[in-house]
Amino acid sequence: MPHVITKFERANPNDVAALARFGSATIHEAQGRLGALSSRIKPIDRDMSLCGPAFTVESSPRDNLMLQLAIHYAQPGDVIVVSAGEYEEAGSFGDVLGNACVAKGIAGVVTDTGVRDTAELIRLGLPVFSLSVCIKGTVKETLGQLGGPIIVGGQEIRPGDVIRGDADGLVTVRREDAAEAARKSAARQEAEAEFIEAYKSGRTIIDVCNLEAVLKAKGLTTDL
Amino acid sequence: MPHVITKFERANPNDVAALARFGSATIHEAQGRLGALSSRIKPIDRDMSLCGPAFTVESSPRDNLMLQLAIHYAQPGDVIVVSAGEYEEAGSFGDVLGNACVAKGIAGVVTDTGVRDTAELIRLGLPVFSLSVCIKGTVKETLGQLGGPIIVGGQEIRPGDVIRGDADGLVTVRREDAAEAARKSAARQEAEAEFIEAYKSGRTIIDVCNLEAVLKAKGLTTDL
Amino acid sequence: MPHVITKFERANPNDVAALARFGSATIHEAQGRLGALSSRIKPIDRDMSLCGPAFTVESSPRDNLMLQLAIHYAQPGDVIVVSAGEYEEAGSFGDVLGNACVAKGIAGVVTDTGVRDTAELIRLGLPVFSLSVCIKGTVKETLGQLGGPIIVGGQEIRPGDVIRGDADGLVTVRREDAAEAARKSAARQEAEAEFIEAYKSGRTIIDVCNLEAVLKAKGLTTDL
Amino acid sequence: MPHVITKFERANPNDVAALARFGSATIHEAQGRLGALSSRIKPIDRDMSLCGPAFTVESSPRDNLMLQLAIHYAQPGDVIVVSAGEYEEAGSFGDVLGNACVAKGIAGVVTDTGVRDTAELIRLGLPVFSLSVCIKGTVKETLGQLGGPIIVGGQEIRPGDVIRGDADGLVTVRREDAAEAARKSAARQEAEAEFIEAYKSGRTIIDVCNLEAVLKAKGLTTDL
Amino acid sequence: MPHVITKFERANPNDVAALARFGSATIHEAQGRLGALSSRIKPIDRDMSLCGPAFTVESSPRDNLMLQLAIHYAQPGDVIVVSAGEYEEAGSFGDVLGNACVAKGIAGVVTDTGVRDTAELIRLGLPVFSLSVCIKGTVKETLGQLGGPIIVGGQEIRPGDVIRGDADGLVTVRREDAAEAARKSAARQEAEAEFIEAYKSGRTIIDVCNLEAVLKAKGLTTDL
Amino acid sequence: MPHVITKFERANPNDVAALARFGSATIHEAQGRLGALSSRIKPIDRDMSLCGPAFTVESSPRDNLMLQLAIHYAQPGDVIVVSAGEYEEAGSFGDVLGNACVAKGIAGVVTDTGVRDTAELIRLGLPVFSLSVCIKGTVKETLGQLGGPIIVGGQEIRPGDVIRGDADGLVTVRREDAAEAARKSAARQEAEAEFIEAYKSGRTIIDVCNLEAVLKAKGLTTDL
Repeated sequence: MPHVITKFERANPNDVAALARFGSATIHEAQGRLGALSSRIKPIDRDMSLCGPAFTVESSPRDNLMLQLAIHYAQPGDVIVVSAGEYEEAGSFGDVLGNACVAKGIAGVVTDTGVRDTAELIRLGLPVFSLSVCIKGTVKETLGQLGGPIIVGGQEIRPGDVIRGDADGLVTVRREDAAEAARKSAARQEAEAEFIEAYKSGRTIIDVCNLEAVLKAKGLTTDL
Repeated sequence: MPHVITKFERANPNDVAALARFGSATIHEAQGRLGALSSRIKPIDRDMSLCGPAFTVESSPRDNLMLQLAIHYAQPGDVIVVSAGEYEEAGSFGDVLGNACVAKGIAGVVTDTGVRDTAELIRLGLPVFSLSVCIKGTVKETLGQLGGPIIVGGQEIRPGDVIRGDADGLVTVRREDAAEAARKSAARQEAEAEFIEAYKSGRTIIDVCNLEAVLKAKGLTTDL
Repeated sequence: MPHVITKFERANPNDVAALARFGSATIHEAQGRLGALSSRIKPIDRDMSLCGPAFTVESSPRDNLMLQLAIHYAQPGDVIVVSAGEYEEAGSFGDVLGNACVAKGIAGVVTDTGVRDTAELIRLGLPVFSLSVCIKGTVKETLGQLGGPIIVGGQEIRPGDVIRGDADGLVTVRREDAAEAARKSAARQEAEAEFIEAYKSGRTIIDVCNLEAVLKAKGLTTDL
Repeated sequence: MPHVITKFERANPNDVAALARFGSATIHEAQGRLGALSSRIKPIDRDMSLCGPAFTVESSPRDNLMLQLAIHYAQPGDVIVVSAGEYEEAGSFGDVLGNACVAKGIAGVVTDTGVRDTAELIRLGLPVFSLSVCIKGTVKETLGQLGGPIIVGGQEIRPGDVIRGDADGLVTVRREDAAEAARKSAARQEAEAEFIEAYKSGRTIIDVCNLEAVLKAKGLTTDL
Repeated sequence: MPHVITKFERANPNDVAALARFGSATIHEAQGRLGALSSRIKPIDRDMSLCGPAFTVESSPRDNLMLQLAIHYAQPGDVIVVSAGEYEEAGSFGDVLGNACVAKGIAGVVTDTGVRDTAELIRLGLPVFSLSVCIKGTVKETLGQLGGPIIVGGQEIRPGDVIRGDADGLVTVRREDAAEAARKSAARQEAEAEFIEAYKSGRTIIDVCNLEAVLKAKGLTTDL
Repeated sequence: MPHVITKFERANPNDVAALARFGSATIHEAQGRLGALSSRIKPIDRDMSLCGPAFTVESSPRDNLMLQLAIHYAQPGDVIVVSAGEYEEAGSFGDVLGNACVAKGIAGVVTDTGVRDTAELIRLGLPVFSLSVCIKGTVKETLGQLGGPIIVGGQEIRPGDVIRGDADGLVTVRREDAAEAARKSAARQEAEAEFIEAYKSGRTIIDVCNLEAVLKAKGLTTDL
């Protein structure tokens, strides 16, 4: 297998666009509580949000050679997703590479190690999700792989799968499930809107969620 | 003992209102350095602040059945306080339940597990303090208890005790100590204001804090 | 050795001023990837930034006696840097001492334990970097040392060395290396600006970083 | 309230002796999955085991003054249980105090901070459960309280309550519930022995645990 | 997809037996530094060792229903491998289920949550690898999946893949790669034995590892 | 400065031998509660013990090139002490290098990253202290420094300083302070033996430690 695999199928752009309209928690629930990455990986600014096909990077801790190559080989709209050993004490990405990403049209960067130059990255408007913020430099020595399956935040992510992130965290959707996940997310969002309306109209949670029978079956007792 | 205990005494509303005027650190100091919850539980937005009698929830990790019931049984002005096993990788509360809380007049939510939909919760204006932010869904399966004593963040909290939170974290005050804690907090705040004035007027810390004798007794030596 | 050493050499003020113009990550890289403190110590507000000679404090966990003395003995422009055992569950510094610092002209505070009254500290405009935010009170009982070498965040810091912090974290520069570190930081910043311009003009990362030969030597293979 | 409370009721010695025959996990289950301390507190040697009424100690992190006093005021057969702020980087107890405990007939020591001299403690045969093993010394400066309610490992422990520990960890039993907990533990142990016999005789887990109906109700599907 | 998938291909028993002769670190290196699980999952006794095809379990935190079912559906020689959300504060497996495993001929248990009854499990001789040891009980409420791909310790494990564990930790080998991994492990072990002999005969590390040219190329300087 | 500094002064062998007779905790206390490394670095077997002059290694995380060189350049009796970025998920040292150390007469290895092949290392009888046990392989790519000052476990260690480790952890002693530290350790050990005898003879802790006056001064109150 070559180090760099560029020829993989990406999720349908329409499905990606559809998924971008829903929050990561909604998508996670809609596809059956699957695909959530570890809550330790977070945006460097809570207004950041991204959605796109994953351009996957298998890299060594404290080494950003493959991340640099990823910027070269990724396509506009891709989200670069890096597996680098869950190492907090390294800053593998900063404003110089951030500018390279923006110039290339990259939709965002996700990594399980640290980043730096956060003020500049926020100004650049590039969505960046990381395990930590750390100023410590990295090297460019070890080959890894681009475009293979990786594990980040306890989830397998294949090249071309959708990755969606917002203030709450990240979720991945298999590229072949993207259309259905978007449909189910829309349905869930609609259902949630109805729940919210019900609460606003004064209905109680036991009533709205039909908990009465469930609670009776479970044997709930009260002092009322 | 029933699963749901609704009949417990709440701290006097005047005392709660009095305590709301002081920061959590001030109250903690004023009552003799007691009542501080673990610093790991923080507001999801640093402008959030809450103060109210605790409506206590004993729940299972990754299960929000009892939290839902708490919204049903709590009274306006209560703060729902949840003990759920200090599990970071679950989002047990989000915008749908957040709307239910606001509709009900709940004063805030404190939990030792995760929450999600943070952007919406911030917009809603509901103060939420949690161990983590996580998109992973929960189930509604296991009965626990409402209205009993719980331990959250290393502190025992009894139903009706006051819970006060701000950007720095959370403190609890026994309901029977609320009036005195408020009085002492006021005294402390006043004393601190005088300290601050003294510093602004140019007096030094050894002078203001009367450290001279203490330091001599301890045997402090200097190169001066 | 006395408990309080006030007579030590500070980095040249011109060098300190020069270093203040560069980010902590740039300085860390410019001096050969040295001097970065642990990424666990962060500003309490991401807009905070500091640069100054270190006034070092060796203190006990949960005891701020020596930190109080440091405010007395430090000089305007100093950054008070505290080694206190990497203990998260203590708030050793707050708004009263913060006002004392501002009155004294202290340039900032760095500590490997917790602080509190963060809202007031942010309003005060005093840069504060800490391991945690915690409301739990401290005592004033144990003598330590001011003005000696300390280890904070895994780095040795000597009195008078430069400490520079921004949103990304903290770096220290030996006082005798300050001038050269500033020169090298300027050179690095200039080089980075050129890299950024190259990316903006559409050049690729392999071209800009001259990676072609390196990658060939390493044996990179692609599917292209 | 005085700093030292010696007059409190201890669990009935017969009940303590009865509980000592069961593992901590069995007791935890038998009393309804209650009373388990955090799994972070462990014996310094896995053959250690203790059971006795708690002599409670509220202490400061890195300060063992109250622990020393506890050895003075505790009674033979007591387990000294220390709440000291969950601080790993301190060794608050070693072989000198260990010898004092043995001379006094103390049944064991439990602490949420560190201990040291573990080789000697193991030779002494004194059961010791701690959060960490650390050589760093402590001071003897701050008063706390003996004989009051404390929180250790996320559980409230009152003076005189039973504390039981073995290789798996620690559980506490309210002194008034000790007799019933022992009875229920015996019943559970007997039931478990029957389960084990059933498995040894070749019966399957679905059969032994009567899972068939439960699984059907839950909608389990298989490829068989 | 059904909840229980029993029909999957297992690694060839001869390959499993071959791999059992090598340590987990050797196999990890031999297959190109792949397949190592997180070092946080360890045997409950350092003499424990296991090797077998994985019978995979996707389960909920604090819920051992699916683990119980796994014992029912697994085959003799299988290693039950459980993904349960990396939750330390639960003991999902103990001596009763341990006896059921032994009766069934299960080769071992690997889980990313806690276990209990460790003394009995060690006596039973069943190899058990876990994230923690914890007495806290679990429930049997939520369906998951048996026989699907799971992620444990940051590695994807498919049903039938080989899992090998010893005192140092765990490694997984794809079932289709097992024969080659065993061959390469044997070669590596032989090479290591030669290295060891070389060192014993007094040759230096630079000589044995042919580092001279490498170090020169890297520009190593010495004070000799 | 060269990468390899071999010419540094080592602590006097007589002083090293003298220190080897005392536990790490005793030495730490005897030299004024200084020199203790983080409790996170522990022996891989609790019967391991080491004492020798430090041969210091500054290395990159997940890279053991400099550790290999250290084995080449260290002298018999040296303890190799490695600073490698506090990274748990790497096994930088195993039985092959362990045999090289034994052949060379190295007195032990201390590292702030992981090691592997622990069963073989224990059989070899080489004392090894590490942050973790991990099977994940490392590379040999990046130059660092041998024989310079390093920071490991939060302590500065200079080449030739004494490093002493046992079951409780590690302490370092400046080479110029070694004789005095040994003298003070002997005095402390003698004093502790007297304390222990006093306890065995039935004297109480308040009496033995002369706490009466101290406690009175602090205002201790009791219910007696």
